[in-house]
Amino acid sequence: MHSTTEQPHDVRISGGRVVSAFTGEEFAADVLLRGETISGVLPPGAPGAARDHVDATGLLVVPGFVDAHMHIESSFLTPQTFAALTLARGTTTVLADPHEIVNVAGARAMRWMIEAGRGTPQTQLWGVPSCVPALEGLEHAGASLSADDIAELLRLPGVIALGEVMDYRAVVADDPRMRGIVAAARAQGVILDGHCPNLSGAELSAYMATGVDSDHTKNRTEVVLEKARMGMLMMLQEKCLLPETVEALLALPQLPPLCLVTDDLAADHILGAGHLDHIARVAVRAGLPATAVLRALTWAPAQRLRLYDRGVVAPGKRADLVLLRGELADFDPAAVFAGGREVARDGAATYEAEPRTGSGAEVRTGPAAGSGSSPDAPDAGPLADTLTVEPQTPDGFRWRVDLPDGTHRFRAMRVNSRDTYTEAAEIELPVRAGEVAWEGRTALVRVRNRYGRSGTVFAPLLGRTLAPGAVATTYAHDSHNLLTIGTSRSAMAAAAAAVVEDGGGVAVVHGEDVAARLPLPVGGVMSPDSAAEVARRSRVVRDALTGWGWEHLNPFMSVSTLTLAVSPSLKITDLSLVDVVRREPSGATATE
Amino acid sequence: MHSTTEQPHDVRISGGRVVSAFTGEEFAADVLLRGETISGVLPPGAPGAARDHVDATGLLVVPGFVDAHMHIESSFLTPQTFAALTLARGTTTVLADPHEIVNVAGARAMRWMIEAGRGTPQTQLWGVPSCVPALEGLEHAGASLSADDIAELLRLPGVIALGEVMDYRAVVADDPRMRGIVAAARAQGVILDGHCPNLSGAELSAYMATGVDSDHTKNRTEVVLEKARMGMLMMLQEKCLLPETVEALLALPQLPPLCLVTDDLAADHILGAGHLDHIARVAVRAGLPATAVLRALTWAPAQRLRLYDRGVVAPGKRADLVLLRGELADFDPAAVFAGGREVARDGAATYEAEPRTGSGAEVRTGPAAGSGSSPDAPDAGPLADTLTVEPQTPDGFRWRVDLPDGTHRFRAMRVNSRDTYTEAAEIELPVRAGEVAWEGRTALVRVRNRYGRSGTVFAPLLGRTLAPGAVATTYAHDSHNLLTIGTSRSAMAAAAAAVVEDGGGVAVVHGEDVAARLPLPVGGVMSPDSAAEVARRSRVVRDALTGWGWEHLNPFMSVSTLTLAVSPSLKITDLSLVDVVRREPSGATATE
Repeated sequence: MHSTTEQPHDVRISGGRVVSAFTGEEFAADVLLRGETISGVLPPGAPGAARDHVDATGLLVVPGFVDAHMHIESSFLTPQTFAALTLARGTTTVLADPHEIVNVAGARAMRWMIEAGRGTPQTQLWGVPSCVPALEGLEHAGASLSADDIAELLRLPGVIALGEVMDYRAVVADDPRMRGIVAAARAQGVILDGHCPNLSGAELSAYMATGVDSDHTKNRTEVVLEKARMGMLMMLQEKCLLPETVEALLALPQLPPLCLVTDDLAADHILGAGHLDHIARVAVRAGLPATAVLRALTWAPAQRLRLYDRGVVAPGKRADLVLLRGELADFDPAAVFAGGREVARDGAATYEAEPRTGSGAEVRTGPAAGSGSSPDAPDAGPLADTLTVEPQTPDGFRWRVDLPDGTHRFRAMRVNSRDTYTEAAEIELPVRAGEVAWEGRTALVRVRNRYGRSGTVFAPLLGRTLAPGAVATTYAHDSHNLLTIGTSRSAMAAAAAAVVEDGGGVAVVHGEDVAARLPLPVGGVMSPDSAAEVARRSRVVRDALTGWGWEHLNPFMSVSTLTLAVSPSLKITDLSLVDVVRREPSGATATE
Repeated sequence: MHSTTEQPHDVRISGGRVVSAFTGEEFAADVLLRGETISGVLPPGAPGAARDHVDATGLLVVPGFVDAHMHIESSFLTPQTFAALTLARGTTTVLADPHEIVNVAGARAMRWMIEAGRGTPQTQLWGVPSCVPALEGLEHAGASLSADDIAELLRLPGVIALGEVMDYRAVVADDPRMRGIVAAARAQGVILDGHCPNLSGAELSAYMATGVDSDHTKNRTEVVLEKARMGMLMMLQEKCLLPETVEALLALPQLPPLCLVTDDLAADHILGAGHLDHIARVAVRAGLPATAVLRALTWAPAQRLRLYDRGVVAPGKRADLVLLRGELADFDPAAVFAGGREVARDGAATYEAEPRTGSGAEVRTGPAAGSGSSPDAPDAGPLADTLTVEPQTPDGFRWRVDLPDGTHRFRAMRVNSRDTYTEAAEIELPVRAGEVAWEGRTALVRVRNRYGRSGTVFAPLLGRTLAPGAVATTYAHDSHNLLTIGTSRSAMAAAAAAVVEDGGGVAVVHGEDVAARLPLPVGGVMSPDSAAEVARRSRVVRDALTGWGWEHLNPFMSVSTLTLAVSPSLKITDLSLVDVVRREPSGATATE
């Protein structure tokens, strides 16, 4: 009879204390790795030879963090640079829903994302976006996925889920398109990821009856409790982690299964605050015990993603490990192992990125290099061809209407400084010779289809005190058309032209000059640049927006959701102003 | 916009209170079913037309119970009658490891079990027995499964697991056969079910490193805690549910995932005490909160079995439901639904069994009808041919030895009255003309191979004060050879002959007369009779054993484990006495 001592291990991590995601206990143990697997969890000093040694004295050893709901594009990074950035924060597994890029470029974008992520040490799994476009018939995205298209994409390797079923109103109403999509996914037995803010009662029941069984949106505390009670897996992102919500969860007879998720985090936020490690700290501050936080970061999401090989530091499980400094509640990664390799230390990736030949992500020459990119930036690859729009000039921002001369009342969008809610308002504007004379009287929003179609819609924007200037972006949820907001036609044209020159991205104009630009030439939503460069430019863009007078906690999100026609209450697409609640076009001129 | 109200449902269960396996809350709700699925969980009285109505006033509605570790053969029932008996107690899903019958008849028995269970409303899923025979080289079973055989069986429909890896000593020692078997299962991605009583430290780590990640055996409390901390899923059966163990689990920073399991329950125990409902009540009595018990009966085992469609009363989930009387802690099923149909009420199945054509379980004429069966018993089917042994006569119980005349010391087995532990002892017995003169001096055990091989082994048995008589059985773990224990050759022959006449089973002889018999003609381990008939006969057998002087809490288990050569410390097979700890033959004559 012999034991584990006789076969050599590859790595021995000694001197640390393992935290059990099962019991919450901390215990002194040496963790041994062989290949991609944990080959032993042994009493300190127990026999077991290893090739490499890692000193974990004073550190806690926990499982790699698992993100059960997120979108890589929200970071503006490609899957490769996203992996490097977030592995350094302990995130070893993600389920990514490439909803933004697939709205831009459809199935080929889905394949490109999967391929791009494959060369990284991060486990990137995928959900197929369920709502492309988000609002059928009321906007044109760069792609449209039918139930059959989705069924085909669900068979790709690495795909394990139907991405968040955002159009919950259509599901509740038993809309045939959404019914077909959910049924196709259910037939394939994949995870059905949900999105249904504050849905409750009979409508929640109808939504869940389709098989969708998770939610990551912000809900009133009583709805969080209702959903958990109803057997919906609650995924909590930063904005959900309110002290009163956590207190209410802890007061239940037992804590329901919970996952912590990031959903949408930008590169500069990740660099500055963190990724899942940051969400964990937010959860601790909101009152969730650190042991429950650990389970919600590891075991619970691994179970959700049907990954039986991870989520706990145990022999036989995958060697995805985070070594934490200080106390568990600090969730402060000192080093990270993925699949048995050390991949990050002190907040920085330590592995050599392997360029994927054939993926094109870093090797091909794309058509739109973008003058705004840093000089030695990697190329934008095959998704650099998604911007098909005329040259941007002040003429393009003439708001022509079929109305007689005189003053007319127009439907306007009113924004606020707290959240992304928009409300319908009205404004009187003069019309002369078939053109609205808006300059000097209101800020204007224009959405221009950027996929070679004719759609162009204008609306006045209220609720901001803006200096002369403009912002333009191709990152505009969910269709990512060319969105421009400004105080003059010339400023708007300057911003839009800069974005087009960059092959997509964001540009802010102060007066008539470009004050900040974030090139996003990969599909108009991602940058091939490094996380640090993207973060730096993001901060410049944010500051330029604020400096322009765009007052908001999250200025860029507040801009990019003006087009999100599934979020209340008045949004704008390339086809019309949309009354989101009634799911119908809202006339550009107001009813009298 | 409309809601769930407009599509008719099949069943509406109204007036009850749902208990959430997620939050532990009880809440008034109507539960609607459509087809096999829960189509709504609605506020009482909310709109929603249904064809049938079930009044659940005063009842609790909970998910169907899920048994993540059990053996159907332990009930002595076939999959069909087992389903009827246990559905009535709320068990709607089982993962069954047909370890006994596969040791008897190999792959064809596995296929027969799967087929036999398929016609029932119970979800019967299967593990492939990993240790056939239990102890390679030290016993002959009716079959032997190599890693390749197991890999092939793992591909059968309904198979989701490798059955309990009982030979944990071989695994820890990195025995090539067990390594190959576990690796074959791991390669197929199935569940790896464990069995490792009191294994701890480096040996536990070595066992888990193979990927086996559950245990259902009885452990000392500190080992239960160690295993849970190490990320092993603890499955608690009745004997594990000690108040001190539960208290220690509740004192942890957080309760680890737990499953309640039945493992081995006989028909009369199930009829008298219950199935998982009984284990649930035992857990409550041991101090586990009723809400934690519910989760350990439903959601936790469903997750373990990778059944995402059940384990919680939620719209979209499978309509496996138990309606409970009284308080949750009573776990007292009043009615049971499986796949949307009512299948039991007031402790009795209410569905019509559908005979499976082609399975042979109830339609074919087998060669060994068994005179002990009740007159109108169903036939034993194709597994009635597994008993190949000579006629049983007193001559067959002559213990011949190659020793000179005189007194010799012999290795003996000593049993106790509490558990199934056996210890090595010695006894002096006279030898005359090459035959041990044991009658009148000791009780004797004989194991006779019943699969046409020559193996026959004798040993004295100490620790009982027995009246004249004998017991014989073909239900003898794990090879199920013909085990006979008695005080005289003639009594032993009478018992063994009765068992052979019945085509397998158990017989107890008082004096020279058969006092009780339980025919088990299906492979020598199961009865085609009804649960009530099997339970009645089981009680008669148990009483006859006790009446004979076989003092034990579980007399039959105490008999049938004398041959279980993986359980300490001295056992007997058809090839030898076995020193279980050293995994080697123990000489029949004692060393001087």
